[in-house]
Amino acid sequence: MSLYQAPLKDMQLLVQQAIAKAGLRDLPELAEFDDELVAAVLEEAGKFAQGELAPLNQSGDVEGCHFDNGKVTTPKGWKEAYQQFCDAGWMGLALPADFGGQSLPKFIAQPVNEMWLSANLAFVMFHALTQGGSEILLHMGSEEQKARYLGPIVSGQWTVAMSLTEPNAGSDLGSLSTKAIPQDDGHYLIKGQKIFITYGEHDLAENIIHLVLARTPDAPAGSRGISLFAVPKVRINADGSLGDANDVVCTGIEHKTGLHGSPTCSISYGDQDGCFGELIGEENRGLAAMFILMNEARLSSGLQGVAFGEVGFQRALEYSLERTQGSDYQTGKQRVKIAQHPDVARMLLSIRSEVMGLRSLAYLIAALIDKSELTLNAAERKSLQARVALLTPIFKAFATEHGNLMTGTTIQIFGGMGFIEETGVAQLMRDARINTIYEGTTGIQARDLVFRKIQSDGGEAISALLAEIVRQADALQRDDALSTQGQALRSACSAVTESLPCILNRDSANLLQLNAGAVPLLEALGTLCCAWQLAELAQLAQSRLREGQDPDYYSNLLALTRFYFAFSVPNIHARLATFRQADAGVEQYRFEV
Amino acid sequence: MSLYQAPLKDMQLLVQQAIAKAGLRDLPELAEFDDELVAAVLEEAGKFAQGELAPLNQSGDVEGCHFDNGKVTTPKGWKEAYQQFCDAGWMGLALPADFGGQSLPKFIAQPVNEMWLSANLAFVMFHALTQGGSEILLHMGSEEQKARYLGPIVSGQWTVAMSLTEPNAGSDLGSLSTKAIPQDDGHYLIKGQKIFITYGEHDLAENIIHLVLARTPDAPAGSRGISLFAVPKVRINADGSLGDANDVVCTGIEHKTGLHGSPTCSISYGDQDGCFGELIGEENRGLAAMFILMNEARLSSGLQGVAFGEVGFQRALEYSLERTQGSDYQTGKQRVKIAQHPDVARMLLSIRSEVMGLRSLAYLIAALIDKSELTLNAAERKSLQARVALLTPIFKAFATEHGNLMTGTTIQIFGGMGFIEETGVAQLMRDARINTIYEGTTGIQARDLVFRKIQSDGGEAISALLAEIVRQADALQRDDALSTQGQALRSACSAVTESLPCILNRDSANLLQLNAGAVPLLEALGTLCCAWQLAELAQLAQSRLREGQDPDYYSNLLALTRFYFAFSVPNIHARLATFRQADAGVEQYRFEV
Repeated sequence: MSLYQAPLKDMQLLVQQAIAKAGLRDLPELAEFDDELVAAVLEEAGKFAQGELAPLNQSGDVEGCHFDNGKVTTPKGWKEAYQQFCDAGWMGLALPADFGGQSLPKFIAQPVNEMWLSANLAFVMFHALTQGGSEILLHMGSEEQKARYLGPIVSGQWTVAMSLTEPNAGSDLGSLSTKAIPQDDGHYLIKGQKIFITYGEHDLAENIIHLVLARTPDAPAGSRGISLFAVPKVRINADGSLGDANDVVCTGIEHKTGLHGSPTCSISYGDQDGCFGELIGEENRGLAAMFILMNEARLSSGLQGVAFGEVGFQRALEYSLERTQGSDYQTGKQRVKIAQHPDVARMLLSIRSEVMGLRSLAYLIAALIDKSELTLNAAERKSLQARVALLTPIFKAFATEHGNLMTGTTIQIFGGMGFIEETGVAQLMRDARINTIYEGTTGIQARDLVFRKIQSDGGEAISALLAEIVRQADALQRDDALSTQGQALRSACSAVTESLPCILNRDSANLLQLNAGAVPLLEALGTLCCAWQLAELAQLAQSRLREGQDPDYYSNLLALTRFYFAFSVPNIHARLATFRQADAGVEQYRFEV
Repeated sequence: MSLYQAPLKDMQLLVQQAIAKAGLRDLPELAEFDDELVAAVLEEAGKFAQGELAPLNQSGDVEGCHFDNGKVTTPKGWKEAYQQFCDAGWMGLALPADFGGQSLPKFIAQPVNEMWLSANLAFVMFHALTQGGSEILLHMGSEEQKARYLGPIVSGQWTVAMSLTEPNAGSDLGSLSTKAIPQDDGHYLIKGQKIFITYGEHDLAENIIHLVLARTPDAPAGSRGISLFAVPKVRINADGSLGDANDVVCTGIEHKTGLHGSPTCSISYGDQDGCFGELIGEENRGLAAMFILMNEARLSSGLQGVAFGEVGFQRALEYSLERTQGSDYQTGKQRVKIAQHPDVARMLLSIRSEVMGLRSLAYLIAALIDKSELTLNAAERKSLQARVALLTPIFKAFATEHGNLMTGTTIQIFGGMGFIEETGVAQLMRDARINTIYEGTTGIQARDLVFRKIQSDGGEAISALLAEIVRQADALQRDDALSTQGQALRSACSAVTESLPCILNRDSANLLQLNAGAVPLLEALGTLCCAWQLAELAQLAQSRLREGQDPDYYSNLLALTRFYFAFSVPNIHARLATFRQADAGVEQYRFEV
């Protein structure tokens, strides 16, 4: 049984598409990152993911992390893999060369990250934190702080942990109560209990930089009174060497249904009144810092949905081409491969079509971020940022919700064997289950979408997106082979456009509908975005087929699009119908009677 | 935290509804089973489920079963609970009084079973097997066999195990290869390996009667050559006392992602050539026997979806009335109960509305079976049996698929806490995950629906069902308060009716569509059936409200129906749209390139 094969061909195609769509081809800054280099990086990453990370995934799940007297031991093989990961330079792939990274654009980092996530999410959880934490330090840290922290972080000598959640402050960070008391020397004394800290304590690196959200004594209430502090596990001397232990104590790790190899820590800061921290950025600007990380993290969680879908598809396909059971639906021939049963094919294609649509969206977002950072045209930058901001909550929530569905479908294809842990696919379901919750639940993404991403700019970004999808629909309609899909795409856009006035209506009478209907609306837009991406792929496939290129591959791409339009696109209308009447029933029901 | 409260009020209402709809009120045979008796039985069962079974559910999951040298030990407390369960007479509730049971009609047994499933499915897995196994013996066994086996089975002294699956014969039972060699004394020597045998070995009872599917030497190939044998773990002397051990050896138990407390055994029969079995019924009629059990088992698995939904709803509701987080969407008031967030309300109501619709369907099916067994009118019996046969695969597949979704939604409501095992709701997800697989996968139910339940009678049963739902829609349309729902129900029926000619078309060109579209079609019909049940409940609620009865309860019932029509009914049209184009993409995609 193959554990995971990096889908290099799909990835390269989608990277090329993303580069073209984002207009990155002509940029001199990216001239060195040509197709050849992309292929080389992806191939190397694929080898590492397949050869080093994937083999530890199941053993890490079975063994889990160990907690003893404040110390966390990661599963067997984790330490060695971590060292190799850092030595090979994967940690700093997309981080600035100034601090030892490789400064690769996001459009290359995205497929590489996908491989890590597919191969072993529990292991690689430290990676997104390091990326996000570095971004925070880059944007908010002083020059001195950057110089002190970023080198060891980019090299993997130190890791980053994000300390946000408290028992009474989860989704609502504004209610956190950890304190930061300023000291005469410019440091702060941190005091408080945090929970759900991923890799908050571990044995992989010599130090851990906790980025802790806390309140200074005179801070305003709520989310405007939160500041961000760097709190090292081991204090750092002026020359950058390690000093004494800081007063940072891991009090336990969670017993989770999945991600057993990733320690989820409860941390007590300053229990002995000796927890030193230093302010990052200005006081009371902690939430802004957090959003820098959060956007990274949302894209990474969304990508987890893609990554789990891909692994599940590979395993299920392999199994259904081996397992014989039942007879052919047409010929009655006995004991055929189960992939020949149309219902099994339906399940396989439901995963594969979603993976391709969502992956295409993920790579596009990455390329749009690259472009927004490189363009010199301010108006273009603004509209690119608005596009990314709009797509981020859709992608995060839709990809993770469908990631859960895809892992369920994978188990279903395995039948009874899927329920047996040794098969390995139940682990996918368990590991993926947190994706729709962390980095902002699906409900929170949907509210972000409706209120901050659609209402707050008066519908400008969504209208621009819809116009682009309509142009895509028009292009499809001009091609006889794709006109059915073109028509369906156009009709889906019209249906969303008809709902826009209602979404933009700030009448308070509308508030219940917008809140209760936000997730169904997000589902509709997520499906529309996948359909859009697959429509573009179909157009590409059609033209390559006409040129006689790789007919097996491109016929399948075309079939995937047909499948998605038949099996998923009708949901757009159903979800919008729900959105239109989303206050029904929610308003009248009383839970406390 | 309450683990489970039997929802007595809902259950009693739905039992009354089912009795009325099935026309059981006037039957003299059922005169003694009045509302008072139903209430008394449900109350007692509720106490047992809450007090004895639910408290063992999580500890059984954590501990699991132990296997050592052929012996299986169940988790702590299992043995005592089993004894109490049998002593209280719950095992034989719906089994014939002739053999020590209580002969209660199915319409009472159904809610009682639901309670066992909600409280502790892993424990109670033996129960459905005992019910189904007893039905087989009642229908197929000789008088002597009934006399010998049924007493100890009904009392719980012996349990029943069903030995169907082999490594190469899962969904496709026709390919099983276990042998049964006739002996001169009329017995058979059984030889073969079976897997996935629930409670195939355990320490709860002194004997286990394995009902084993096997082939006699001259049996025809495929499913027409399968016979059924009773194979006791301990041989039974002529006087009914226990003799020597039979050659039945448990070779291991599975390490599953859920249902840890229920031993799933691999069994070797006749490894030492000493496994005696006796034929039940005629040779080569084993599959017919299996279908007796299978129909029981399908209803039981479907009920598991309802049962998990109910527990999940109760836990999630309790949590969302305790947990404060975020601010009120209208007033901005800080730190409100999360049940006040419309998106959390949406999730809670999505579970509650499905549970009520599916439970109503479950109880209706039970009452229809009772009626079909009691009616003296042959035509009525036939049409009742056809209705039950049609509804069974819909209910099994739809309730279990949505059971999985509901456990996922429960976790989502708990947020990060849902991912922590101690919270207990991740166990619901893990335990429920097998429901869509065992007793016939969702794909198999969908094929059964399309080919055996719709095509084979030329659409008679489905047309009768649709006509009844249309009558319900008409009734709703005549009530101003419900006319919107009435119209939606009617339009859904019309959409299904329009698809009927295509479903009934036996053209081979149609086969791919019917096979690939069977599950989406079943989804549409499942949603329609829930909508139908909820529409009836809304009508009842409306009339009770007009009479001034229990306004809190009935207003909520009405709200549930509104919710379901807004959030779920639009799926009917989407799934039918998929059905209409279900060959798209499945046909063209090639998995082996």
